[in-house]
Amino acid sequence: MEVSVTVVSVSRPETTAAVTRGAARLLAALGYAPLTEVTLPNGRRADLMALGRKGEILIVEVKSSVEDFRTDAKWGEYRPYCDAFAFAVAPEFPREILPEEPGLIVADGFGGAVLREAPVVPLAGARRKALTIAFGRLAAMRAGGAEATTLE
Amino acid sequence: MEVSVTVVSVSRPETTAAVTRGAARLLAALGYAPLTEVTLPNGRRADLMALGRKGEILIVEVKSSVEDFRTDAKWGEYRPYCDAFAFAVAPEFPREILPEEPGLIVADGFGGAVLREAPVVPLAGARRKALTIAFGRLAAMRAGGAEATTLE
Repeated sequence: MEVSVTVVSVSRPETTAAVTRGAARLLAALGYAPLTEVTLPNGRRADLMALGRKGEILIVEVKSSVEDFRTDAKWGEYRPYCDAFAFAVAPEFPREILPEEPGLIVADGFGGAVLREAPVVPLAGARRKALTIAFGRLAAMRAGGAEATTLE
Repeated sequence: MEVSVTVVSVSRPETTAAVTRGAARLLAALGYAPLTEVTLPNGRRADLMALGRKGEILIVEVKSSVEDFRTDAKWGEYRPYCDAFAFAVAPEFPREILPEEPGLIVADGFGGAVLREAPVVPLAGARRKALTIAFGRLAAMRAGGAEATTLE
């Protein structure tokens, strides 16, 4: 009798896609309208940027692996463009290596949970207004089928 | 010899779709980010709502026929939700029956032209802020694949 064993290795891009999808569903369930892969005015790309009912701007950065976190730990560069910032990781990610200041979401491809609320540091009025307009314009262009990525 | 003649009758929904598409392309070329079929807080549906670079909110209402205009001439009901309002019609539409106050766009399925600029009556700050947030949220939900229609 032969036994066939298939080892499924989940690649980093697949993990990123699954965690992004699950975190986006969680944000929608929490009342936010999320947009994926938004390039900020400083050139950094946010995996998720979301707009709340009262205009709160949230950025969520997905970390697919320890290596991904270690090679790109500049999360402070997202802070000037949001009221609150959180990491989102897969359930198997070693959460103890993440900094304690940001929020923390654990997600798989189907949904997620907030393990730590993202602390709120409100944007200044002019920056918030500019970001809200840019977010709406980028989202509308994407809804219309354009492959727009940059807040501008 | 037989001659086959095909008469193509363009239906009203087809005219509406073509003019909407052409007007949306024109708005994008003018620097606006347009969203189609947006239900306003008063229940009326705007064929196009667009956000400009400085946050200007424009509503464009497509009229496919004289009958369409005559049975639904309540364009004043769009004004509380935009800085500027315009009609968009096909080239063959009898433009003389339209009121002279709003802007006027003539469009076909491929593009369009502004025949009369839409006069600007700026929204009050709080209304503008609420509409901008709602526009961005609706657009992001649509970009994410949801069939959202209502500004809220």
